[in-house]
Amino acid sequence: MSTKRFTGVLPPMITSFTPDGAVDYAAFIANIEHWNEDDLSGYLVNGSNSETAYLTEYEKLQLLRLTVKHAKTGRLIIAGTGLESLTETIRFTNICAAEGAAYALVLTPCYYDTSMTSAALIDFFTRLADASKIPILLYNVPKFTHVNMKADAVKKLAQHQNIVGMKDSTGDVPQLASFLSITAGQDFEIFVGTVSAWFPALTLGITAGIHATANCAPNACAALQQAFNAQDNDRAIAIYQALLPLNTAVTATYGIAGLKLAADILGYQGGTVRCPLQPLNEGQQQGLRLIVETARQKLLDLEVRP
Amino acid sequence: MSTKRFTGVLPPMITSFTPDGAVDYAAFIANIEHWNEDDLSGYLVNGSNSETAYLTEYEKLQLLRLTVKHAKTGRLIIAGTGLESLTETIRFTNICAAEGAAYALVLTPCYYDTSMTSAALIDFFTRLADASKIPILLYNVPKFTHVNMKADAVKKLAQHQNIVGMKDSTGDVPQLASFLSITAGQDFEIFVGTVSAWFPALTLGITAGIHATANCAPNACAALQQAFNAQDNDRAIAIYQALLPLNTAVTATYGIAGLKLAADILGYQGGTVRCPLQPLNEGQQQGLRLIVETARQKLLDLEVRP
Amino acid sequence: MSTKRFTGVLPPMITSFTPDGAVDYAAFIANIEHWNEDDLSGYLVNGSNSETAYLTEYEKLQLLRLTVKHAKTGRLIIAGTGLESLTETIRFTNICAAEGAAYALVLTPCYYDTSMTSAALIDFFTRLADASKIPILLYNVPKFTHVNMKADAVKKLAQHQNIVGMKDSTGDVPQLASFLSITAGQDFEIFVGTVSAWFPALTLGITAGIHATANCAPNACAALQQAFNAQDNDRAIAIYQALLPLNTAVTATYGIAGLKLAADILGYQGGTVRCPLQPLNEGQQQGLRLIVETARQKLLDLEVRP
Amino acid sequence: MSTKRFTGVLPPMITSFTPDGAVDYAAFIANIEHWNEDDLSGYLVNGSNSETAYLTEYEKLQLLRLTVKHAKTGRLIIAGTGLESLTETIRFTNICAAEGAAYALVLTPCYYDTSMTSAALIDFFTRLADASKIPILLYNVPKFTHVNMKADAVKKLAQHQNIVGMKDSTGDVPQLASFLSITAGQDFEIFVGTVSAWFPALTLGITAGIHATANCAPNACAALQQAFNAQDNDRAIAIYQALLPLNTAVTATYGIAGLKLAADILGYQGGTVRCPLQPLNEGQQQGLRLIVETARQKLLDLEVRP
Repeated sequence: MSTKRFTGVLPPMITSFTPDGAVDYAAFIANIEHWNEDDLSGYLVNGSNSETAYLTEYEKLQLLRLTVKHAKTGRLIIAGTGLESLTETIRFTNICAAEGAAYALVLTPCYYDTSMTSAALIDFFTRLADASKIPILLYNVPKFTHVNMKADAVKKLAQHQNIVGMKDSTGDVPQLASFLSITAGQDFEIFVGTVSAWFPALTLGITAGIHATANCAPNACAALQQAFNAQDNDRAIAIYQALLPLNTAVTATYGIAGLKLAADILGYQGGTVRCPLQPLNEGQQQGLRLIVETARQKLLDLEVRP
Repeated sequence: MSTKRFTGVLPPMITSFTPDGAVDYAAFIANIEHWNEDDLSGYLVNGSNSETAYLTEYEKLQLLRLTVKHAKTGRLIIAGTGLESLTETIRFTNICAAEGAAYALVLTPCYYDTSMTSAALIDFFTRLADASKIPILLYNVPKFTHVNMKADAVKKLAQHQNIVGMKDSTGDVPQLASFLSITAGQDFEIFVGTVSAWFPALTLGITAGIHATANCAPNACAALQQAFNAQDNDRAIAIYQALLPLNTAVTATYGIAGLKLAADILGYQGGTVRCPLQPLNEGQQQGLRLIVETARQKLLDLEVRP
Repeated sequence: MSTKRFTGVLPPMITSFTPDGAVDYAAFIANIEHWNEDDLSGYLVNGSNSETAYLTEYEKLQLLRLTVKHAKTGRLIIAGTGLESLTETIRFTNICAAEGAAYALVLTPCYYDTSMTSAALIDFFTRLADASKIPILLYNVPKFTHVNMKADAVKKLAQHQNIVGMKDSTGDVPQLASFLSITAGQDFEIFVGTVSAWFPALTLGITAGIHATANCAPNACAALQQAFNAQDNDRAIAIYQALLPLNTAVTATYGIAGLKLAADILGYQGGTVRCPLQPLNEGQQQGLRLIVETARQKLLDLEVRP
Repeated sequence: MSTKRFTGVLPPMITSFTPDGAVDYAAFIANIEHWNEDDLSGYLVNGSNSETAYLTEYEKLQLLRLTVKHAKTGRLIIAGTGLESLTETIRFTNICAAEGAAYALVLTPCYYDTSMTSAALIDFFTRLADASKIPILLYNVPKFTHVNMKADAVKKLAQHQNIVGMKDSTGDVPQLASFLSITAGQDFEIFVGTVSAWFPALTLGITAGIHATANCAPNACAALQQAFNAQDNDRAIAIYQALLPLNTAVTATYGIAGLKLAADILGYQGGTVRCPLQPLNEGQQQGLRLIVETARQKLLDLEVRP
């Protein structure tokens, strides 16, 4: 990443499955082709919202190859490559590099979460970055990992030439401000990892977001940034407020099954989830539909198509 | 509170004690007289940072009376009046009303924190607001109470004529955005309760803050808002970044004992804490002094006096 | 407390209220008279299950006086006397001493819970014990206080001549074992504060329990201990297993409102709760009734009357 | 597992590494040969304490084969086989079955921990048990997974013919009692997964333990059970109390690096840990050595060799 900031929105792409649980590659391609027409700057393949934990290495590589093949020219391709084991993470990251990923987004190891001190994380990511053939992005998502990177680790790792940024999915805006402050002057890009902090992150000078909600409402995520860039804060806030309940629904309340149903409703290929994740029951589906329709209407009132 | 928004910064005033543990009213008055010269809009007496949990009712009322007597004309006086018992809270709130408090800031009851459902909080605050002679501000501070008010409770309570706002001290910016959205159009003022969210809160349209850090750096808190109002976001963010480590030190890392030492260093009357709170040890004092001096220097570089 | 261990079960007595919210002293007396006929060793007045957080000092003293007056001869009377403020706790403890409490059970201060280090707690309880006219029992209940006393604090405080024991309500059996180990040889009595750990506590050598469930099923709690003392572990475990779901219902699932309804069902005076606590709705009442009846039947099958 | 209960202690075997990070199979074999002489009933290979999260599938299978080859005749061999993906878990479990594992211990999936409802876990484990060629043991370890199986899931799954037990590592004794109660009459064995609950678990009727501490002090773990079986509770409790601080040190305070150093001190092959786990620093080593020596002395005083 150069000193020129990366700008825009990327979806952490959902993975479609056929009813019998196989990856539905055709649906995945259809989504990319749809997103290619949307206001997006790139794609994250094999992130948390991809149900990556339930994918085989073969499936992950197929999804990466298809992303490389079908993504519109000029879009940034980031691959999630983190595994618990350092050796395995290095191995898999370099395979993903060979398959065309521009950057590797690497989860903090987390099984022994209370042992993941700053010293442990600095050791892990330094060794990884030394060995990786593509630049590394740190991935901080305590919601899933129960590990929250501390400022001292971020500060140290930001100085590594092959660590070029991080995705912070906490939604903790003071923490974003703190990470920006300690990495100021470094060639280090902070991606905000949730729409819940998208507008505040922009006001702090962050310019890129990797948003689950961008799977189903990519243009609304982009329109928020466009309004902010046009110095129309009232409009940016209005779009932000319209997106917040939708974001809560497809991340917290209804999880990935909800995100996929929202994608279905809004014109993408969502589909089912892999066991042990469970589909939404009838009541949950109704609850989600109402939230999606309300958000869609609010966005249309703002002349934003989701 | 009228539809015209309240604007500015209030310190949740610390309470000074003499070495033998009595309230040092003279030091308290000296602080108010000092703050009267600072860029502040009002005072909160008997808040969390006042060690209110360790004050007798007599002491609380004395502090309120002295605040009323010594506060500069035109400054808003808010009194913390919350107790676990509804009956006691009503009784004490109305005494504070008689003694000159303009608003009562009322903590969510919290001893049985898992029972403090939205229904319970709606019941409590509705009955209180019905009986209170002054308007009520909800006080949401899960750091101490382990109760985080939910949107449904805030929405319902904001409709009560005698509930005119809330202080949210979570530092959770998406939550602030959500509370703003659900209370839009109501005559309901949201005070942000921590400097850690001050700049993001301003960008969302919040105009008032009750900041622990305003005990020791009131003018810096105010200067941040002035810069924002002057549409100088770079300057506002620079002040915000300078304040963040100080704020972490005097709220999280070193607590009220740290806040008081910072006040001492920066020209106010801090002093000791009441048992069971413990004074800082030598190493902690050194750690804090370094943070305070660093913040002061950064602020002076920005031509801001703390 | 002598080197001879205290033995038996005490209820942390519920407080009855009239429909308009006043303390129903007559019902309280009726309960004591009923409990006087049960297999109990004493009474705790003004504990967590007494809704003490919602009682005035006057009400607390009235309840203590009535307990002293109506308790069967020979039963131990313990009064909850803890407040956040050290000075207030000393003052109120000595009033309770004068009114006839044999021991004071004192909650860890908790409003600033993250500041309640072992040093802070040692300071608080040492000063209290120095000044108290009756022996002190430490009260560890992180469920409500979010403070869990550490072994170093318990070890140090157990050496104080006027601190004679503790109530541990965590249900954490390894912690009970650890506290027993570090206080071995001291004149220090550990009361287990929940039926969920009653049988395991007995096997470790603990001989006394203060159980919420003893408000509604005192004789079953006592029968468990009698079976254990008679070396009939199978019977003790069977009673324990019968009590566990009831205990979960009246502490965790349905709270104090549930405990009071269970008391009503089983022949005591339960009644309503004080605001902000809320009464059970219809569905909750049905759920609880089923649990109570199942427990009663299981106990009757064991020839234990609740 | 037959209706005759399984009895005794199993170590969740540590994995030794050479200084350059490779698995030290020779050291692993040496440990098994040592443990073959100890009072153990079997072995768990590829558990949490094996740093399984950092092992490749090849390494895991090598460790299993060596366990099968070197374990003393008659000892039960359990293999950890859980992965996030159901399909992968089935595949790997059946490979382990072919390689000689008697039982598969399967972790609750946990990456999307808040989605791991009882319905999700019942679905996952039922499908797994349907497809597995060896019996399944549920593995509940919220310390690492942040998922705590609920009674309804355990009750349902215990009825499956190919699910024959569980390892509960919570140390939550009331929960153990509850799980025993709801699975009573089923052919379902509960292994307690921590020495911190070993004595209480025995009193409840549990007869088997899989204890991290059994890596370094296997005979003490066994001696505790022997004393209990001989109805010498005082001796059993004394051994339990001697083991508790050691157990806290090698699980909570110092983690797996501490467990391995304790193994080194007590005559086994511990060695280093794999990145990102970090070795103990000098001060930590000293702290641990003191705890190990104190425990050893206490055990020797009881005529127990660790």
